[in-house]
Amino acid sequence: MKPLNPKPSTDLSKDFHAVWHPCTQMKDHETVPPLLIERGEGVYLYDRDGNQYLDVISSWWVNLFGHNHPRLNSALKAQLDKVAHVMFAGITHQPAIDLATRLVELSPDNLKKVFFSDNGSTAVEVAVKMSLQYWRQTGHRNKTKFAYLKGGYHGETLGALSLCGIEMFRDNFEEVLLSNLEVEGPDCYRCPYGLKPDTCQAECFEPMQKTLKEHRDSLAGVIIEPLVQGAAGMKMYPPVYLKKLESACQRQNVHTIYDEIAVGFGRTGSLFVCGECELSPTFLCLSKGITSGYLPLAATLMEDEIYSAFYDDFATMKLFIHSHSYSANPLACAVANESLAMLTENDFLDTLKPKIQALEAGGKRLVELKWVGDFRQTGMIAAVELVKDKGTKEAFPFEDRVGYKIYQEGLKRGVLMRPLGNVIYFVPPLVISIAEIKMMMDTASECIRAVLD
Amino acid sequence: MKPLNPKPSTDLSKDFHAVWHPCTQMKDHETVPPLLIERGEGVYLYDRDGNQYLDVISSWWVNLFGHNHPRLNSALKAQLDKVAHVMFAGITHQPAIDLATRLVELSPDNLKKVFFSDNGSTAVEVAVKMSLQYWRQTGHRNKTKFAYLKGGYHGETLGALSLCGIEMFRDNFEEVLLSNLEVEGPDCYRCPYGLKPDTCQAECFEPMQKTLKEHRDSLAGVIIEPLVQGAAGMKMYPPVYLKKLESACQRQNVHTIYDEIAVGFGRTGSLFVCGECELSPTFLCLSKGITSGYLPLAATLMEDEIYSAFYDDFATMKLFIHSHSYSANPLACAVANESLAMLTENDFLDTLKPKIQALEAGGKRLVELKWVGDFRQTGMIAAVELVKDKGTKEAFPFEDRVGYKIYQEGLKRGVLMRPLGNVIYFVPPLVISIAEIKMMMDTASECIRAVLD
Repeated sequence: MKPLNPKPSTDLSKDFHAVWHPCTQMKDHETVPPLLIERGEGVYLYDRDGNQYLDVISSWWVNLFGHNHPRLNSALKAQLDKVAHVMFAGITHQPAIDLATRLVELSPDNLKKVFFSDNGSTAVEVAVKMSLQYWRQTGHRNKTKFAYLKGGYHGETLGALSLCGIEMFRDNFEEVLLSNLEVEGPDCYRCPYGLKPDTCQAECFEPMQKTLKEHRDSLAGVIIEPLVQGAAGMKMYPPVYLKKLESACQRQNVHTIYDEIAVGFGRTGSLFVCGECELSPTFLCLSKGITSGYLPLAATLMEDEIYSAFYDDFATMKLFIHSHSYSANPLACAVANESLAMLTENDFLDTLKPKIQALEAGGKRLVELKWVGDFRQTGMIAAVELVKDKGTKEAFPFEDRVGYKIYQEGLKRGVLMRPLGNVIYFVPPLVISIAEIKMMMDTASECIRAVLD
Repeated sequence: MKPLNPKPSTDLSKDFHAVWHPCTQMKDHETVPPLLIERGEGVYLYDRDGNQYLDVISSWWVNLFGHNHPRLNSALKAQLDKVAHVMFAGITHQPAIDLATRLVELSPDNLKKVFFSDNGSTAVEVAVKMSLQYWRQTGHRNKTKFAYLKGGYHGETLGALSLCGIEMFRDNFEEVLLSNLEVEGPDCYRCPYGLKPDTCQAECFEPMQKTLKEHRDSLAGVIIEPLVQGAAGMKMYPPVYLKKLESACQRQNVHTIYDEIAVGFGRTGSLFVCGECELSPTFLCLSKGITSGYLPLAATLMEDEIYSAFYDDFATMKLFIHSHSYSANPLACAVANESLAMLTENDFLDTLKPKIQALEAGGKRLVELKWVGDFRQTGMIAAVELVKDKGTKEAFPFEDRVGYKIYQEGLKRGVLMRPLGNVIYFVPPLVISIAEIKMMMDTASECIRAVLD
């Protein structure tokens, strides 16, 4: 193996020799080694040399209450002293009962049951498999396809990847992906109808309308990231699109699968988008923030109509045969319960309002930069899109790696970003202070200028 | 919703109202509610009323050192006080470096790198996706299929399920599963060649031989559970099959994917089957016992030949684009490191030898029962197969739910089994005592007689 450069510490060499990091061209580590993070405290991470980094993206959008939170740590330790894990078939436990009960209470009224798994991909696979089996068991065996939006991202196991509308993720696996239907969706920054999100009527719903009508007999469901398409570059669109989707799906007898894995648990300023927008998806997929960034856990919620179609005498074999060994891990559930308590007590979500305003104010400053074509925001999620030319909205070519260069500038300044191509985004822990929001956005501005000016 | 019966505690009602348990016909809970487990200690679980249950199946084959182990608890708490989790792209941490380094050291020499994910399904999906992308990037775009054994089980996300050779898991999803090749494999209890595992030459390898030869141009890899097909009913076969597979795959230029998710980490009496049998799979998938049953974590190891085909300048886009938010979770890695230390120090695996003998002695007693057609054992994994008639080996019909009835008898006697159809199996935590092994198997005998005599 090639040596690390510049001179690595022994542990970084070991990393380079034994670890294959996710979504990483490992050759990049020849010149830019990974940060060796030793501890976290609030919104900051610290490397072995004591350097401090503001965790601008909440460690892949998972952390809500900061690192090393005393209440979350205590909840985990208390459960650990009872039992770390038990099988979840034939057995139940208080942390899972409490979490499921609370999730049902806090989500839209039509969602009645919770099926636990380990990550976003499995939460989506569970919804997809339940939808398929539901149609099969109710006499609609032809309903085997799903519609998804261009730019949509729902995980990377092959079933979930078959619902992904981003070429970069799919390209190497096209031969084996399931045959689903990709549909042109909203693109508010480059709206082909020339409309603005705050006044439009989701005219861009037309392709989905057409797909639903034409393929109703073969469509099992539509999957969607409500309001924010994360991996696509934090592309945002207004709720009116979701309202149209819901009524069209009801009309055409097609399930709606809400993937709130990234946006759930307060990111948008409300607990769940579906609740805030008074929508009733057939399935709701949750993960990431569910344990406030502590442990892997996922949940798929569904309507009673779905559950009932599987509820029968054993001999009918209508049960849902799907399991993961660590389903409903008690440690993860215990942390999730404490995090959910913190999210819902003392009007916590109201405390986000001034922070949301601070993000907006920062965005207004950023958008003045020559290279910032768009600033967009949904609650505590904000992003700027960098362009070569504000007038034409021409993108920087992929090979320029503009985002990657800005990431490196950020590290020098103690701010850990992870741009998506030309999109610099801000998904900080919800407990970030207004001063830290200002610092974060001012530093981003500096980094953009350092790379592009 | 229908009421629970007999009178449930309030928490069991809540469970019934909000939780959908994995691999469970929820209607069964009307008459047999789940155990409400409150704590664990060593090989025992305790319900709310203080009833004790011997965890015969290690909570779905995950637990190695018993519940609530002081060393594992301490390791977890020590890491928790530093940081629970950080993103694993652009960042690394000591627990992951140590774990990857140690896994590479302890596995066969040809395995050089570790890719982390969350569960067995994702460990398999990662191997499958890497294999596909490898062939694509090395000029073999037609190699897009995998061969798997009848009876094989490799997880339940749709990609992993497409490698599953058990109808019950596949049936409801056939329309969307990928097109792979199912191959007749070993069936030692009902050997069609009339041979015995300890003297045969894996004559049953012939169908695989034929498949590899005929489909070499379209085959990316073969996936296999070495020595023990778990979900199929702990079906066991001798190493000679694996030796033949390895040389045939090398000859036909096809990857071997070893799924040691269930058998790894000491279950067979050795750390990994591939190491013990001096085999060199292209990929090795690990999960379950990796954290000794504490937390979800998985690892996929692979040859340098695979890694190198992805290692290039970023612009070539040869990188492996796959990630899960909680990849290489530091808490899970810290527990895994401590568990691996315990497995490899003080000749721990040698301490299993008398236990393995005790299992064998118990099996000899069980096989005397009228209904026990077969006793089989590989190290610390043992199973008996119940039959209507020992001579004809005729199986009990599925609808009789013989296993389920025996499970209920076990609960009455403080022993938690979870039969696979007509197969009663024993996969206890490795720290079980010889006296407990005897009690476990005597109780199983009692339960079998209570149901069938």
